[in-house]
Amino acid sequence: MKSWEDNVRKVVPYTPGEQPKIENLIKLNTNENPYPPAPGVEEAWKAFDIEKLKLYPDPAVKELVDALAEYYGLKSSQVFVGVGSDDVLAMLFLTFFNSKKPILFPDITYSFYDVWADMLRIPYEVQPLDENLHIRKEDYYRDNGGVIFPNPNAPTGVLQSLEDIEDIIKHNQDVIVIVDEAYIDFGGRSALPFIEKYDNVIIVQTFSKSRSMAGARIGYAMANEKLIRYLNDVKYSFNSYTMNAPAIALGVPAVKDREYFEKTVQHVIATRERVKVELKALGFVFEDSMSNFLFVTHPEISMVQLFADLRKEGIIVRHFDKPERIREYLRITIGTDAQMDTLLSFLREYLKK
Amino acid sequence: MKSWEDNVRKVVPYTPGEQPKIENLIKLNTNENPYPPAPGVEEAWKAFDIEKLKLYPDPAVKELVDALAEYYGLKSSQVFVGVGSDDVLAMLFLTFFNSKKPILFPDITYSFYDVWADMLRIPYEVQPLDENLHIRKEDYYRDNGGVIFPNPNAPTGVLQSLEDIEDIIKHNQDVIVIVDEAYIDFGGRSALPFIEKYDNVIIVQTFSKSRSMAGARIGYAMANEKLIRYLNDVKYSFNSYTMNAPAIALGVPAVKDREYFEKTVQHVIATRERVKVELKALGFVFEDSMSNFLFVTHPEISMVQLFADLRKEGIIVRHFDKPERIREYLRITIGTDAQMDTLLSFLREYLKK
Repeated sequence: MKSWEDNVRKVVPYTPGEQPKIENLIKLNTNENPYPPAPGVEEAWKAFDIEKLKLYPDPAVKELVDALAEYYGLKSSQVFVGVGSDDVLAMLFLTFFNSKKPILFPDITYSFYDVWADMLRIPYEVQPLDENLHIRKEDYYRDNGGVIFPNPNAPTGVLQSLEDIEDIIKHNQDVIVIVDEAYIDFGGRSALPFIEKYDNVIIVQTFSKSRSMAGARIGYAMANEKLIRYLNDVKYSFNSYTMNAPAIALGVPAVKDREYFEKTVQHVIATRERVKVELKALGFVFEDSMSNFLFVTHPEISMVQLFADLRKEGIIVRHFDKPERIREYLRITIGTDAQMDTLLSFLREYLKK
Repeated sequence: MKSWEDNVRKVVPYTPGEQPKIENLIKLNTNENPYPPAPGVEEAWKAFDIEKLKLYPDPAVKELVDALAEYYGLKSSQVFVGVGSDDVLAMLFLTFFNSKKPILFPDITYSFYDVWADMLRIPYEVQPLDENLHIRKEDYYRDNGGVIFPNPNAPTGVLQSLEDIEDIIKHNQDVIVIVDEAYIDFGGRSALPFIEKYDNVIIVQTFSKSRSMAGARIGYAMANEKLIRYLNDVKYSFNSYTMNAPAIALGVPAVKDREYFEKTVQHVIATRERVKVELKALGFVFEDSMSNFLFVTHPEISMVQLFADLRKEGIIVRHFDKPERIREYLRITIGTDAQMDTLLSFLREYLKK
């Protein structure tokens, strides 16, 4: 082995959900929104001056930051924008999780948290969800280097109450607490008000789910001005120009169209509630989800087998190999009504056999 | 102070060149290309299906990686793409500069290198350029944790010969050597062939200068398959989906149009050579630049004053406060012929006074 190999950071990377290029696939595996972006996004696309691409974009991403600040009733200095919420979360880990004490997060959660911690050599301890796949808030009442959890949690879809979240924050005033709200728009109540009440709370959201723009890669963090300043300093020490000109131009109209956003989200919620009833009738078991996916199991059939059988039908859902506790679950994204009807028809036949 | 502050990564960030929003500005401060992207980029923009934005982009960025591999006669497994060359370089520092020994780079160079090293807590030692602002290759023949330098160097524009670069590589077989070729297309010879001859060499290039696409944020690294694999593992541990759908769609036609690319680059070079002659006639002093900028001083006038006076005329160039050695220099991007004529007219009058 060459000696340069000694100094390579060797890591086991996060495995993203497949992005297969098969036609007519029913893609229910990466929690994308089945509806197109807001009409204003297409207008912005048409109006975009392609020659502008020769110039660097605005490193402060002011237009998009201002649009988000206005939407959420914040100051622009309280908003940070990155290349999807993964970029935002990676920057947050780098900026705020530098203690020798372990950071805490659930055992069943977004599977990128331990990857970031390993890569950045941040100690961590996972806290097991209870037998119903809920976070036990008391697990987070102990000395630690920081706390992060999604709400609703992924891949369970379970929403934690704001009272529980505030209890976790109250018990963690000496560290940064990050609430990862990628799925909050699908019926949850955001912990955003806590950023005014507590100086150590950061809320992360994304355009990839409720705003139908996974392809644009836009995520954001909201917190007090001081935390956002620290975060920006690290971002400007990593890559000054993270948001390209198209992301900025297309992101702004997506934020401004509140009506379309609410209509789309309500549509996804309505489909989800209907699918819940139908899946229950078929014997599937799951905790109540307040996200745009359901995390299901079934006492009579193997989920590993069902995953493979769905795939043969061109229906792709998500299966996680680890942790062991969730091997008998599938995560199913809520698609259009037609897509879900195809899935349900298949499952009805499948369970008859 | 709250105790969470103890664990914040506090850094002094890189300061990007200004992106002022003033109309009719002659913007010669951030080395952008004055010509628009290739015609195929506009066609790709028009053909883009906006609904696709609801889906995640291809995390492997296959189309763009393949296009680059074909252009440079490499295997796709030898190419890595990131959000501008800054993202690529940040990932390279994170992946390969993990030694306790200092990495080496010039004292006058791209001012992001020490920022990345500070942020990632990588020890480094700067090697002074000689009195003519050239790299002294012998400075790099010593025990170290890695070597990085731009070729041509920035902000000097000075091109190092391939023989010198090979000497540096030969003396550094135990560490990774990164040649940052952001400006190589403007008349230099790329060190790319060395990636086949040496297993520890990485070449970094960008779409921001010669390809007129600073606004799209696309940079890339080329090396042997093993190095690219290590780099991808770290990238997938940081952010799986860095390149958004527009960047991929627009980047591909920019690579494929070799003819437009060469024509644009030749135009910039021709303008640069003409401006060199005119500036020399006006008494400006500079080393020969093989990039799309000139790094100039003048024995009779203050560059700090000239910077301010140009600004009043709506002509923005770049001045660096540090290191001290280059305070009496200005970096002037090569713009269109008309822009450079305006600059030259102003300077002729200015020097008469």
